[in-house]
Amino acid sequence: MLVHTDYLFFHTKQRQEFIRITDEIAGIVEQAGVQEGMVLVSAMHITSSVYVNDWEDGLIHDFKEWLETLAPAGLNYRHHQTGEDNADAHLKRTLMGHQVLIPITNGKLDLGPWEQVFYAEFDGQRKKRVVVKVMGK
Amino acid sequence: MLVHTDYLFFHTKQRQEFIRITDEIAGIVEQAGVQEGMVLVSAMHITSSVYVNDWEDGLIHDFKEWLETLAPAGLNYRHHQTGEDNADAHLKRTLMGHQVLIPITNGKLDLGPWEQVFYAEFDGQRKKRVVVKVMGK
Amino acid sequence: MLVHTDYLFFHTKQRQEFIRITDEIAGIVEQAGVQEGMVLVSAMHITSSVYVNDWEDGLIHDFKEWLETLAPAGLNYRHHQTGEDNADAHLKRTLMGHQVLIPITNGKLDLGPWEQVFYAEFDGQRKKRVVVKVMGK
Repeated sequence: MLVHTDYLFFHTKQRQEFIRITDEIAGIVEQAGVQEGMVLVSAMHITSSVYVNDWEDGLIHDFKEWLETLAPAGLNYRHHQTGEDNADAHLKRTLMGHQVLIPITNGKLDLGPWEQVFYAEFDGQRKKRVVVKVMGK
Repeated sequence: MLVHTDYLFFHTKQRQEFIRITDEIAGIVEQAGVQEGMVLVSAMHITSSVYVNDWEDGLIHDFKEWLETLAPAGLNYRHHQTGEDNADAHLKRTLMGHQVLIPITNGKLDLGPWEQVFYAEFDGQRKKRVVVKVMGK
Repeated sequence: MLVHTDYLFFHTKQRQEFIRITDEIAGIVEQAGVQEGMVLVSAMHITSSVYVNDWEDGLIHDFKEWLETLAPAGLNYRHHQTGEDNADAHLKRTLMGHQVLIPITNGKLDLGPWEQVFYAEFDGQRKKRVVVKVMGK
């Protein structure tokens, strides 16, 4: 049984950014030498998401607008009484999900034709981390 | 250590359908011969969900109405400039989740009394696939 | 390969409660003796969530208000024709997520600085259960 751990680091220029990380995950799986198993990709910060969806700029724009509708910035959140201003980022990350688990088959990510793995940052401009844990044989 | 891979295929008649797949997953786990471990059930298309909830037609009706409220079809989505018309399906699948991981204990799915596994199709009438990855011993 | 199973039980006083369970999960992982692997924490009832986010009362208040906006109680849900009154709890649990998978590195939960694991109850005042499945070596 093989278990392999790695981390991805992000420091985005914008407060909100969506970054494709499929190739980075595939690279870590190859390095781990796992032929059959699973890889967990999980945001280690609670204002970021890891999710699987389409690599299409229009849809990413739609996601951002939609998240702003369902979890708007700038409201009078109770969390902001601590001095924070990012309650909306906690809510947005909850809608998009905080982690994905990808099957590994024959040494490759077993993804459908349009599945791409994304890191979504909702409170960036500082150092953030994603854990990548590979398990299998 | 045992790892076993299988796939479920769907081709729904309606654009939107909710299909119970608990028995199919249980069958694959039995075939895998895993006594202790986990099974990942994950939609391989980005306009479909796999989720766990109640097998009750009224609630499934409520889910559909609720998803239409939070992620309506027919809006002027940017994604539609590519020729697609399914941006709402990407959003709905995000709300319902794209995968579940079910524990296997004593050779059985370790589910609570009302937990049922569902495949939710939001852009059907074509071939879709779900990956089922069993891992354990 | 080690696989270890445990359960957490809840019987909340309020209909809705958010309970931090990070330490309980860490204790089960220690007991399992797994140094490298993953632990699945999954609600066995379909009106409860397990999620990872901030341990800050203001934010928990914001989550509750936000869930009430997006998935209100007291609507005329079809599910209620069965005699139930908890359709909103099924929807709220869907928004917050039903499970998390936490990496284990060097025998410890591999969590970011602010990550805390929570059980969220949306239809309490009765016995509920969470399964904790540890897998690794």
